[in-house]
Amino acid sequence: MTFDTSARGVYLITVTPFTDSGALDLASTDRMVDFCLEKGVTGLTILGIMGEATKLTAEESRTFARQVVQRVAGRVPIVVGVSSPGFAAMGELTKAVMDIGASGVMVAPPSTVRTDDQIVAYFDMVNETLGAVPWCLQDHPVATGVQISAAVELRIMKNSPHCVMLKHEDWPGLNKLSAIRAASDKGDARRVSILTGNGGGLFLPEELTRGADGAMTGFAYPEMMVDVVAAHARGDVELAHDVFDAYLPLAKYEQQAGIGLAVRKHLFQQRGVIASAAVRKPGPKLSAQDVADIARLVRRQDKRLNELG
Amino acid sequence: MTFDTSARGVYLITVTPFTDSGALDLASTDRMVDFCLEKGVTGLTILGIMGEATKLTAEESRTFARQVVQRVAGRVPIVVGVSSPGFAAMGELTKAVMDIGASGVMVAPPSTVRTDDQIVAYFDMVNETLGAVPWCLQDHPVATGVQISAAVELRIMKNSPHCVMLKHEDWPGLNKLSAIRAASDKGDARRVSILTGNGGGLFLPEELTRGADGAMTGFAYPEMMVDVVAAHARGDVELAHDVFDAYLPLAKYEQQAGIGLAVRKHLFQQRGVIASAAVRKPGPKLSAQDVADIARLVRRQDKRLNELG
Amino acid sequence: MTFDTSARGVYLITVTPFTDSGALDLASTDRMVDFCLEKGVTGLTILGIMGEATKLTAEESRTFARQVVQRVAGRVPIVVGVSSPGFAAMGELTKAVMDIGASGVMVAPPSTVRTDDQIVAYFDMVNETLGAVPWCLQDHPVATGVQISAAVELRIMKNSPHCVMLKHEDWPGLNKLSAIRAASDKGDARRVSILTGNGGGLFLPEELTRGADGAMTGFAYPEMMVDVVAAHARGDVELAHDVFDAYLPLAKYEQQAGIGLAVRKHLFQQRGVIASAAVRKPGPKLSAQDVADIARLVRRQDKRLNELG
Amino acid sequence: MTFDTSARGVYLITVTPFTDSGALDLASTDRMVDFCLEKGVTGLTILGIMGEATKLTAEESRTFARQVVQRVAGRVPIVVGVSSPGFAAMGELTKAVMDIGASGVMVAPPSTVRTDDQIVAYFDMVNETLGAVPWCLQDHPVATGVQISAAVELRIMKNSPHCVMLKHEDWPGLNKLSAIRAASDKGDARRVSILTGNGGGLFLPEELTRGADGAMTGFAYPEMMVDVVAAHARGDVELAHDVFDAYLPLAKYEQQAGIGLAVRKHLFQQRGVIASAAVRKPGPKLSAQDVADIARLVRRQDKRLNELG
Repeated sequence: MTFDTSARGVYLITVTPFTDSGALDLASTDRMVDFCLEKGVTGLTILGIMGEATKLTAEESRTFARQVVQRVAGRVPIVVGVSSPGFAAMGELTKAVMDIGASGVMVAPPSTVRTDDQIVAYFDMVNETLGAVPWCLQDHPVATGVQISAAVELRIMKNSPHCVMLKHEDWPGLNKLSAIRAASDKGDARRVSILTGNGGGLFLPEELTRGADGAMTGFAYPEMMVDVVAAHARGDVELAHDVFDAYLPLAKYEQQAGIGLAVRKHLFQQRGVIASAAVRKPGPKLSAQDVADIARLVRRQDKRLNELG
Repeated sequence: MTFDTSARGVYLITVTPFTDSGALDLASTDRMVDFCLEKGVTGLTILGIMGEATKLTAEESRTFARQVVQRVAGRVPIVVGVSSPGFAAMGELTKAVMDIGASGVMVAPPSTVRTDDQIVAYFDMVNETLGAVPWCLQDHPVATGVQISAAVELRIMKNSPHCVMLKHEDWPGLNKLSAIRAASDKGDARRVSILTGNGGGLFLPEELTRGADGAMTGFAYPEMMVDVVAAHARGDVELAHDVFDAYLPLAKYEQQAGIGLAVRKHLFQQRGVIASAAVRKPGPKLSAQDVADIARLVRRQDKRLNELG
Repeated sequence: MTFDTSARGVYLITVTPFTDSGALDLASTDRMVDFCLEKGVTGLTILGIMGEATKLTAEESRTFARQVVQRVAGRVPIVVGVSSPGFAAMGELTKAVMDIGASGVMVAPPSTVRTDDQIVAYFDMVNETLGAVPWCLQDHPVATGVQISAAVELRIMKNSPHCVMLKHEDWPGLNKLSAIRAASDKGDARRVSILTGNGGGLFLPEELTRGADGAMTGFAYPEMMVDVVAAHARGDVELAHDVFDAYLPLAKYEQQAGIGLAVRKHLFQQRGVIASAAVRKPGPKLSAQDVADIARLVRRQDKRLNELG
Repeated sequence: MTFDTSARGVYLITVTPFTDSGALDLASTDRMVDFCLEKGVTGLTILGIMGEATKLTAEESRTFARQVVQRVAGRVPIVVGVSSPGFAAMGELTKAVMDIGASGVMVAPPSTVRTDDQIVAYFDMVNETLGAVPWCLQDHPVATGVQISAAVELRIMKNSPHCVMLKHEDWPGLNKLSAIRAASDKGDARRVSILTGNGGGLFLPEELTRGADGAMTGFAYPEMMVDVVAAHARGDVELAHDVFDAYLPLAKYEQQAGIGLAVRKHLFQQRGVIASAAVRKPGPKLSAQDVADIARLVRRQDKRLNELG
């Protein structure tokens, strides 16, 4: 399945399901893939931070990726995070996942690059490393500590013909998004796909208005993002906001630092998608009060969605 | 007006109004004080980051503080941020604002303290510096880089009898809040007031359920926080959430990194509270698209509040 | 005394002497000034981090600055650190110290500026704030977290005609120093003075070879830097290294993180320059083993200097 | 070869030799091993940051480790850095290198652990992951951002019976080293080996005086560290300092941020140990001026060593 600059909609960042005893749960993996596709996602992003990639052995990563690829069976593109401390590992991992059947990869800069020229030089080496593999530039300063200006992003795009997507997570950086879109609208730059993940999509309607093509983030209710993007694409911006606002209290709770992933897995389990909410160590655990908070927010979300019809 | 462990409700973190030409605007300062008190705030916090304290001369800081004290006229306590790179400056500033009529001060740790013992030792020196002045411990790791465990906070409280409040901004740290409250509930620790400011109060209902006494943060609609705290205190938790959710999309927009203060001042100006939305340099400016975003969110907020009755 | 682009030699970063009870010690301040001038320093830099500036009250800072200015009596320029979290405070402090008789000021960027354009914009505002006051750009990424490329430094110099000096502390950044010097040698840029402070001058001979005009740092033996600069200026590079190497073990010990300032004050006290080695809280204290280390290094240094004749 | 608490002397952190075209150079690897053992090192540490571990593919890492193990042939212990973002990878890498014939592993904490309890909990999980494999705790706050107090280190040692060594790189932290040694001297703690690496061994004589058992760091002249440790062990502290001081100017130059590894490889090549000084991308390159600096320092070092006899 092609991963290119025409990408739009919702690329869901998936979790990696484990059994209660901590083993990879491939049956749940299949259910999660089915669930996401039923809800209308247009792509999947696997083995990111929220996919607990660093807690998997190399063999487990390959097994999980193979399972996802097989289950998706070419219906949507699959993007794999390959940020690595060195280019040898990045190249090796990229080759491995492309061989398995991934559609492209995603790269964030290391925290050691700082000046404009250092950032550009880093991505020139990424470009050299990845060759013809289509890739997504992840701009996520809260996680990386690297501030990339709009002008520098445009330099990277120019130097790297196979960079097909910007994952915009500069929190929230709406005016930066506008600037990048304006550059391609005016013909000053190649147009790439822009999917957003700010705080887990907490600015999605505004980002779509600024020209984003959709979202790439995780949320236990992917249908929210699918519906928001669809309504916005039809020009019904108010409906996009209505849907978004109905889910916002829970989305916000799921995005909290520290226990966010445990919240997400708990919700996926509650929804019958995965068998266990287990998170590998080191990882957060929900308290009884957290579970009660979530129950209340889900109940209120259901009620609000009913009101909206 | 006393600032002590019984503090509850909403301590609003105020902006500092300027004229379009950048001078202190004392008439707007008076209007802002009146506005906050009419909306039901139970305290004011001035000269914080969102009050552009670092952009004021020492004389301007004193003038502004004096104006607020005079206008408040003892109706609510006034807390002043005095975090300083050194204890001489902290002591000097504390003496100055207490002489003017402040009720207490607030202190966050410098990013240089890291280990548990370093943090405790730092606040022992704060305690020694402040003497009998009541003070609030600001726990805001996103801004300071300092992670304070619940156990360390309890050590600080024990060593510092005049620490009367915890400003809890460990994002969101709900379980830490629960742990601190549990310690005083069980009689293992002195009970202090806990006001919250996580992401600008974005977890207020949940925090109240965990035992917070209210909020200390900024928002151009302080009535939201006042109403949420009041509903929660009456036991109407669902109403607290209803009110909160109605304001959440705009609150979230106002809390965004970079332009948040400009959004807040724009809203205060739109509401007729301050004459100019000017922010001193270096500071953000709203784009036309930002202003359009805000207008939409305000319109939607009004509609939703109408629906709620 | 003029502070301009012709500055060269050794600008010593002074300590601020206190009595054992922690009060400003003005008699020791006078002795320290005399000592530095006798040893041949060509400038003094006061109220920096190593001058415990943040531990002084505003009144104490003024008193100390006045004492130094008065004792120096125009024999060498005096530079004052005015880095501030806001421009109002920077402007206020600059005016205050220039009124007292300082020759110029020094500014480092705040850790919040990151991209090339953010750095340039920041210093454009510095330029606007300082007006015609001559100033020194402090490039010290270990302390500030801000990486400034050679190209960006040249942009700052171009925009700010009153920036007369670069304090080069990009550890060690010898090739950056070469690049900046090459730009002015080729006529592509205005020539400014470059004084170095890398790790307390631990690369001084190499920096002079790259085109530095001298050092701006602290060391309890300022005669070392004076002699190294003089020998190098005469073309006797080997002698410059010989002198440097003789002092290097102690200089390195004095530059260690954490207790460096306590080592320096201890040495100044041993040399009869200041009456007390007291450092204000929060500050390091020497252990008996530290004192023994220092005694050994001083003894060995004396022996080595004797060998050199 | 056993890696246990009796370890002492010099564990050299090796480089990874490449050919000019960037391939692993196994012949140079053999020569490097021979060179180190001839110079008297008592252990080797491979695949650390200075070994460009992150620039190797998994297969290259195994090939290099196997070559070193084979050439060493049990004469000294071999320690391998296994710090990983997750425990699955850490466990996998540990098993792989122990299977190849390593003697033990080394672990530094990730920058995300901050509070005392978080640090202890992290190393409890390391302990669980490594099982009976002997390991070294790397305390290197400049690189990790994690400040570990002496008390916390002692807690880790207590919880982890197979932690046999502390690599002390808290710059310079001499008093922390003294505190840890005092704890085992008084019988309050298990005695572990302490090897130091502060700034590349720039405080080695002082550290030995405080009770360190030797050094674990890299330097193109390992004989310096071997001779310093030997002289100190014989009680000839002054000779230890004499030898140290003779090498200090070059050691300091080799330790500089940014180009240090290129300096080291250049020196190893000059000494005939490795065939090429090539550093893999992203990596530093020496300028002609850097090379001239090094030539001067080597010449001066030879002269000084001749003087010492």
